[in-house]
Amino acid sequence: MLSVDKSKNSAPLYMQLYKQIKAEIQDKLRPAGSRLPSKRKLAATLAISVNTIEAAYGQLVSEGFIEARPQRGYFVCRLDELQKIELKEAPTLPAQTPLEQIKIDFSPESIDKEKFPYNTWRRLLKNCFDEYDKALLDCPPAQGFLPLREDIASYLYQARGVHCQPQQVIVGAGTDNLLQMTSRLLDNRYCLALENPFYPYAANLFQRVGHEVRFIDVDKHGIRPQALPNLARIAVYVTPSHQFPSGVFMPINRRIELLNWASDGQERYLIEDDYDSEFRYNARPIASLQSLDRSGRVIYLGTFSKAVAPALRISYMVLPPALLKVYKQRYAAFAPAASGFEQRVLHEFISSGAFEAHLNKMRKLYRQKRQLLADSINSWGKTASIGGENAGHHLLLRLNNGLTEEQMCQQALAARVRVYPLSRYFHSRVPKQYQSTVLLGYAGLSEQQITEGAKLLQAAWLNG
Amino acid sequence: MLSVDKSKNSAPLYMQLYKQIKAEIQDKLRPAGSRLPSKRKLAATLAISVNTIEAAYGQLVSEGFIEARPQRGYFVCRLDELQKIELKEAPTLPAQTPLEQIKIDFSPESIDKEKFPYNTWRRLLKNCFDEYDKALLDCPPAQGFLPLREDIASYLYQARGVHCQPQQVIVGAGTDNLLQMTSRLLDNRYCLALENPFYPYAANLFQRVGHEVRFIDVDKHGIRPQALPNLARIAVYVTPSHQFPSGVFMPINRRIELLNWASDGQERYLIEDDYDSEFRYNARPIASLQSLDRSGRVIYLGTFSKAVAPALRISYMVLPPALLKVYKQRYAAFAPAASGFEQRVLHEFISSGAFEAHLNKMRKLYRQKRQLLADSINSWGKTASIGGENAGHHLLLRLNNGLTEEQMCQQALAARVRVYPLSRYFHSRVPKQYQSTVLLGYAGLSEQQITEGAKLLQAAWLNG
Repeated sequence: MLSVDKSKNSAPLYMQLYKQIKAEIQDKLRPAGSRLPSKRKLAATLAISVNTIEAAYGQLVSEGFIEARPQRGYFVCRLDELQKIELKEAPTLPAQTPLEQIKIDFSPESIDKEKFPYNTWRRLLKNCFDEYDKALLDCPPAQGFLPLREDIASYLYQARGVHCQPQQVIVGAGTDNLLQMTSRLLDNRYCLALENPFYPYAANLFQRVGHEVRFIDVDKHGIRPQALPNLARIAVYVTPSHQFPSGVFMPINRRIELLNWASDGQERYLIEDDYDSEFRYNARPIASLQSLDRSGRVIYLGTFSKAVAPALRISYMVLPPALLKVYKQRYAAFAPAASGFEQRVLHEFISSGAFEAHLNKMRKLYRQKRQLLADSINSWGKTASIGGENAGHHLLLRLNNGLTEEQMCQQALAARVRVYPLSRYFHSRVPKQYQSTVLLGYAGLSEQQITEGAKLLQAAWLNG
Repeated sequence: MLSVDKSKNSAPLYMQLYKQIKAEIQDKLRPAGSRLPSKRKLAATLAISVNTIEAAYGQLVSEGFIEARPQRGYFVCRLDELQKIELKEAPTLPAQTPLEQIKIDFSPESIDKEKFPYNTWRRLLKNCFDEYDKALLDCPPAQGFLPLREDIASYLYQARGVHCQPQQVIVGAGTDNLLQMTSRLLDNRYCLALENPFYPYAANLFQRVGHEVRFIDVDKHGIRPQALPNLARIAVYVTPSHQFPSGVFMPINRRIELLNWASDGQERYLIEDDYDSEFRYNARPIASLQSLDRSGRVIYLGTFSKAVAPALRISYMVLPPALLKVYKQRYAAFAPAASGFEQRVLHEFISSGAFEAHLNKMRKLYRQKRQLLADSINSWGKTASIGGENAGHHLLLRLNNGLTEEQMCQQALAARVRVYPLSRYFHSRVPKQYQSTVLLGYAGLSEQQITEGAKLLQAAWLNG
C-alpha cells in the first residue's frame, strides 16, 4: 500500500513515491506486466497533486522500471535478474606501513624545499588567476600553452644549445607522460635500447607498451654505439648529461659517435633525457646531443620537477621534424595532461627571470651540499670512494672494506639512515666496479643533516 | 694565435680561451694529437693567471676535446667527423589559420565561464599554497592525494551510488590519461568494444596501443549485449548516463543485461565513463552501473573537466578489486600526471561544500539554456526535431527538409554559426535516423547568443 509522509522535514513527496514503487518492483511485489494505479486515482487516494504522481512515474519511466501504454496507463517492465557472484572482499590494503623511524633520508629524488621562492610563486598564482583571461578555464592546447613553449625554446637555446622552434616543443605532465607519447610516436615496431644501469620507469613503461627492450652496458663515457643491435627500427634512450644512476657524463666524442650511428640508419632515434643538465657544478654544462644533431634524429626531453618542484607535473619534449609530422598526423591521439593554469604560472615564472635566478641560487646551494658530503666521505680515508660526476642531486658511494651493498643498506637503516642500493638499477649482474655501492642524494637535506648523516654512516660502516 | 680581451664588459677570460681553443679544434687548426701550450707558458704569454688557463683546459678535458697526459701536458683528442645529412627545413607550420569569423559557436565542449566561482577558487589557491605543508612541493602519490580520493569516494557514493573505498580511487590527468592506464591494466590481449557512435579519442587511443577494437551499434537504449563478440578477453567502453554523442540514456534493464553479460565470462569488464552524469535535467540521475555491479566487473571513470573546468586536468577512476591488485603489482609503471597543488585545491573545493553548491547552480543554469534552445528549435515546426536526453551540454538537431548534414554545416558557417556534424562520430555508415543531424552545444553560450544563434540557423536552413 503506497503512502507518503507529509511532515515538514520529510523527503519530497514525488521522491518518496518513486522510491516505494521502485522497491516494490525490485522485490517482486509488483510483478512484470502489472498495472499501476492511474495518476488521478492515486492522487485522490493519497490526497496529493497529480503533478507529484506524474513526477514520480516520469522518473520510473525514464529509468526503465515502468512504461506508459497509450490510453491504458502505466505497467511494470520485465526486468532481468541481476546475477550475483560471491565477491571476495576488496583487498584491505595495508595502511602504508610507516617505514622504520628514519632520521636522515639520502633520497636521490628530493629537492631543497627551504629555498623555494614561495612569495614569488604565490604572487604569480594570484596574478595568473585572471578572470579576464578568456581562456583561463579552457582546456589547454594539446601541445601546450604557446607562451610557455616559447619560453622553453628560448631557454633551451641559451642554456643547452638546443635549436628548435616553439612549434617543435610539446608540453607534458612529467617525464613519464612524455615517454608514453614518444612510445606512441615511434610505435611498437621500434626496439628500445636502454642504458644499463637504467631508469626503471622507462624500462617498465616501454616493456608494458609492447616494445622490445634491450639493455646496453655503459662504460665510463656512457653507452657504446658499437654495442647497439643492428635493427631496422631502434631508439636509444640516453641520459648524457648525468647518466642515471651511475652519474657518468658523456664526452664530446662519444656524443659524435652516437649521432653518427643514428644517422647511419633510416629509422634510428636518440631519446636524450637531459634531466639534471641544469645542475653541473664544476664546469659549464656541455652542449646537448640535440645541439649537435644535423640529421634530425634526437628527441630531446626535459622536466621542471627538479628545477622547480616535483609537485609541478610539467615536462617538455622537442621533436625532430619527421616526428613532429607524425605528431601532427596523430594529433587526435594526444590529449593534454598538464594543468592549463600551472602552465600559465610557470610561463610567468620563466619570462619574468625568476626561473633563472632560482636556478642560479639552487646550483650554488647544491654545489655546497655536494661538496660538504664529498668532504665528509673523503675524510674517512681510502675505505670509501665517491663516484659520479660533479652534478645533479646524488653521488655514488663505494666501500671496499668487504661490506656488501645489502649490508650497507641494512646497517645504515639500523642507524636510522636511509641510503639507496645501486644494484636495483641494473638489468644484469652488477659489474665489479659498481658493487658495494649506494646512491646518496643530498639536495633535500640541510647541511647539518648531511654532516650528521655522514657521521652516522661512518660509525655504522667503518667502526663495525 | 690565442688572445684574450681584458676590457671591462668582455666575457670571463677562461671562457674566451675555452671557446677559442674549442673552435680551433673543431676547425682542425689544432689537429688530433697536437700538444697545447703548457699552462705556465700560456699564462705568461697572455699575461693572465695560471688558474684561468686551468679553468679553460679543465672544461675542455671534461667535455672530451683534450686530454691530460701525466708529465707531458695537454693533447687534442681524436674527434670523429660529425656526419651531416641535408636536413629538410623544419616544417614551417601554418600559423593557426583563424577560422572563418565565427560569431556563434555551438561547441559541445564548452562550459559556462561566467558563473565560475572565481573568488572562491582564488581564496583556495591562496590558502592551499601553504609553505608549512611539508609535502606541498613533493611529487604527489601515484594514486593521487589521499584526502581528494576520500572526497571522491564519498561524493560518488552519495551522487552515483558508487560503493568504493578511497583505496580503489585513482586520480588521473584527464579521461584520456585514465583510459591509457586502463589499457595498460587490461593489456593488449583484451579486445575493446566501443559504442557506435563513439568517443573518437578512446577509439584512437585503444587502436594505437594495439588493442583490437570493435564497434557495436547502439539502439535507443544504448549498446546491446547480444551484439557483443564472444571473446575470451573483452572490455566494453560505455557512456550509460548520456551516450556520447547520441545522448541516449541506458535504462535499468539494459544495465542489468550488460552486467549479467559481463559476469558470464571470466575476463569481461565494463568501462563505465559516467561523464555528464552530474547534469541531468528532467529527473534524478539514475544509479551508475558500478552501483549495481555485484561481480567486480565495472571500471568507473569520471572527470572534473565539465563539472569544474577543462583547464583543470583532473579525473578519477574506481577500480574493481581484481584490477586494483594488478594496479598494485604494476605500480611502478604509473607515474602521477595530475598536479599535486591542484589536487589540494580541488580537495578544499569539494570538502568545503563549494563543489556541490557549484554543481547545483550550473545544473539549473544549463537546464535553462537547454530549454531555451529547445524552445527556439521547436518553434520552427516539424522540419526540425530534437534528439538526445534532457542532459549534458549538447543536444542533437535533425532536419527533414532534404538538407544533408554537410549542407547544414556549410550554410551555418556562411551565417557565421558553427555546428558540429554527427557523422564523424560513426565508425560505419550513418544510420537513417541519425542523418542530417548536428550537435549543438549550449553550455558555453549566453542566453542571448543561444537565441540569436537559433535565429541565424533558422534563416540559413529553413528560408533557403
